[in-house]
Amino acid sequence: MTKTRFNPAVSQLGVPAIPQAASWANNYDGRYGKLIDFSQAVPDFVTHKTMLAELAARAGATDSTGYGNIEGEPTLRNAYARHVTELYKQEITPNNIHITSGCNQAFVAALIALAGSGDSVVVCNPCYFNHESTARMLGISLKYVNCLATNNFQPALKALEASIDDSVRAIALVSPNNPTGAIYSPQKLQEIFTLCQQRGIWLILDETYRDFMDPRLQSDRQHSVASQSTQTHSAATLSHQSQSSNHPTSSINSRTSDYSIRAPHDLFGMDNWQNTLIQLYSFSKSLSIPGHRLGAITAGIEAIEMIAKVMDNIQICAPRAAQLAVANQLLSMQDWIATNAATLSGRSDIFRTVINKHPNWKIRSMGAYFAYVEHPFSESSSLNVAKSLAENYGVLTLPGGFFGQHQEGYLRVAFANANSDMVRQLGDRLTEVNTHSILIA
Amino acid sequence: MTKTRFNPAVSQLGVPAIPQAASWANNYDGRYGKLIDFSQAVPDFVTHKTMLAELAARAGATDSTGYGNIEGEPTLRNAYARHVTELYKQEITPNNIHITSGCNQAFVAALIALAGSGDSVVVCNPCYFNHESTARMLGISLKYVNCLATNNFQPALKALEASIDDSVRAIALVSPNNPTGAIYSPQKLQEIFTLCQQRGIWLILDETYRDFMDPRLQSDRQHSVASQSTQTHSAATLSHQSQSSNHPTSSINSRTSDYSIRAPHDLFGMDNWQNTLIQLYSFSKSLSIPGHRLGAITAGIEAIEMIAKVMDNIQICAPRAAQLAVANQLLSMQDWIATNAATLSGRSDIFRTVINKHPNWKIRSMGAYFAYVEHPFSESSSLNVAKSLAENYGVLTLPGGFFGQHQEGYLRVAFANANSDMVRQLGDRLTEVNTHSILIA
Repeated sequence: MTKTRFNPAVSQLGVPAIPQAASWANNYDGRYGKLIDFSQAVPDFVTHKTMLAELAARAGATDSTGYGNIEGEPTLRNAYARHVTELYKQEITPNNIHITSGCNQAFVAALIALAGSGDSVVVCNPCYFNHESTARMLGISLKYVNCLATNNFQPALKALEASIDDSVRAIALVSPNNPTGAIYSPQKLQEIFTLCQQRGIWLILDETYRDFMDPRLQSDRQHSVASQSTQTHSAATLSHQSQSSNHPTSSINSRTSDYSIRAPHDLFGMDNWQNTLIQLYSFSKSLSIPGHRLGAITAGIEAIEMIAKVMDNIQICAPRAAQLAVANQLLSMQDWIATNAATLSGRSDIFRTVINKHPNWKIRSMGAYFAYVEHPFSESSSLNVAKSLAENYGVLTLPGGFFGQHQEGYLRVAFANANSDMVRQLGDRLTEVNTHSILIA
Repeated sequence: MTKTRFNPAVSQLGVPAIPQAASWANNYDGRYGKLIDFSQAVPDFVTHKTMLAELAARAGATDSTGYGNIEGEPTLRNAYARHVTELYKQEITPNNIHITSGCNQAFVAALIALAGSGDSVVVCNPCYFNHESTARMLGISLKYVNCLATNNFQPALKALEASIDDSVRAIALVSPNNPTGAIYSPQKLQEIFTLCQQRGIWLILDETYRDFMDPRLQSDRQHSVASQSTQTHSAATLSHQSQSSNHPTSSINSRTSDYSIRAPHDLFGMDNWQNTLIQLYSFSKSLSIPGHRLGAITAGIEAIEMIAKVMDNIQICAPRAAQLAVANQLLSMQDWIATNAATLSGRSDIFRTVINKHPNWKIRSMGAYFAYVEHPFSESSSLNVAKSLAENYGVLTLPGGFFGQHQEGYLRVAFANANSDMVRQLGDRLTEVNTHSILIA
């Protein structure tokens, strides 16, 4: 009798990060007040009541009970294609969209479609841990490109280029970045896209945190969305009815001035982007409904067909009620999303003020959703620091070590998770930490 | 510049079966009346209104919007563990349960936990096509054991034994079977389990169609469930409160007489079953909510830990609203589920009567949900027969060829999909087919 075995690619994976961190918080005795939870990337915004009502209505309808299309509900593919078209100012059709049950599923489905055991994928270091564990679980090798604080945690083009060998099928990036919050500029993304295109590999671009970008980093997002969204969507409805006409470009240009959120990049306008770019998005995050698990892939039609084959095996289709609900609400929720982004920018200011009062703590990067903070305990592992902060001071963050090598000096702080009052309370806790630092060091 | 490539393990997969079949039906002009859809395994029962109300209530609640536990909602793991304990008459704890988003996801998560590229899994021929495509997509080889009509489509123990070599990590079975409907006896399953245990490999047992078994094949299911379910569940609630006590066996035995559905097998009572058995189930099917995507895995705690690592990468967690809703309704829906099974047994009688009037068509196997029917066109491929039946006569089935080699003589008929009236209409269509058989042959 041989010993019963698990897949070593799975058994070698560590315990998932979030439950591990949550267990530290359970040891906190509450002495400094309520736990300040900066750990998981859960938006703290209460789901919009109209969204909740729509979710309830669709979940209670028999229409939602049967199987749906593998690629997603036609209404949601249509609504999201319209949204992408408006935001990126390039014509994206519903056939370019695949709905998934969350953005992690978007990543695993895309990765399986592109790469198998023995292939490689290039990622940044630090790296979102689920991208790493997903590749490892599938026997796909990882090639790391170091992103340094001295370079604002941007991946250098030359380093990316040097990492590409015959085994590489894709570069996988997250922008705005998890864990650092760093935002890659349109120019940077265009350079990377061109590199991928030249080398015949794919660019998987995870834009989960796109809608949480500080509006001040964009043009006149707040103004345009808040004041003109209704009008814009009416115009968009008209122009989209002629979506498959011969003049898609003119219909887009005509509403560019109405919908003036700055596009995060211009990759959907690059020639033959369909053969290089696979872009990922999370309705879960933007609409504060992670428990409903809903994400999307935007890609070329051939890539969508491959991803559908994978999705058929992973889940048949994403759950339908949430898809139908989001289809009905996505466009009208854009002002609410923009308001949340504005709220977060205020919170990031408070966070910066708090940290700046403790000069031995340093914000090394901060963009959308996350700050990447250098802690003062250079002798300690980031794991020990994070664990001690959680257990002794009720401040739950994730250790830099969870995100890769040479990250021991950092903590990932999901400041979006905690409201402004809790962010303010962080100041007192850091004072306590500085006083009793022996507990950590 | 090298050519942009997809993963060959994915690009080599065929187009998913169900959308392919649906496209044939679109060509039917309706001349013989409404399409009779025997294709997908979608229960035709309208979701219970209490279930719908609960789904709506949970989807509309903020409690469901955040991330949940990877392994599933504690309330659902608890309710389902209780259900499994009662049905199989062996103590199963919530820690033995992992909730998934549908039973296909249960399969892919279990398979990844056990096997990687280069490993093998033993399956039956004919085989549920998504089990095949899931393994192929992951680079896992398939070893087929032929299940013949002459042996009631049962896998022979010797053939299973002969198929096991060093590369094999698991035998994957479906009982009641998809596509044949064949039900493996408790004795047969015990022999296969013992073989797996002796050889140190896993048995993945997919019991998606368990609740659709003809009640007449069981003991006094209808009587006991219809008349005693309320009382039984009250008793179960009491005994489960002492679930982790030192006397689990006595608490189970005490209610065996109350809950007298015959267990489909006794594998959960085998010594060290936790190191060999991984059992899969579908709430989607049993509760007529496939659009909500909900399944479950019952396994040893170590296997559940491995599967959780996989699920973290595939989806973080199954969508929460449906989990919370099913947790509240699962036990009280058992009489509704039993009534549906009784309805199906009546429908299977009608189906048998209809087919028997056309002696050139032969039911070769029929159990829960599916019949495996031999068509009279031995010169034609099953694909041509199924396509022609759909396009010309409005009868949508799946060709045997979708399920493996040597299956060209068969069609899979999901008689559970169509109501009794539609099953009766099949008779007239077959008369037309026999008259105009030139369209097929």
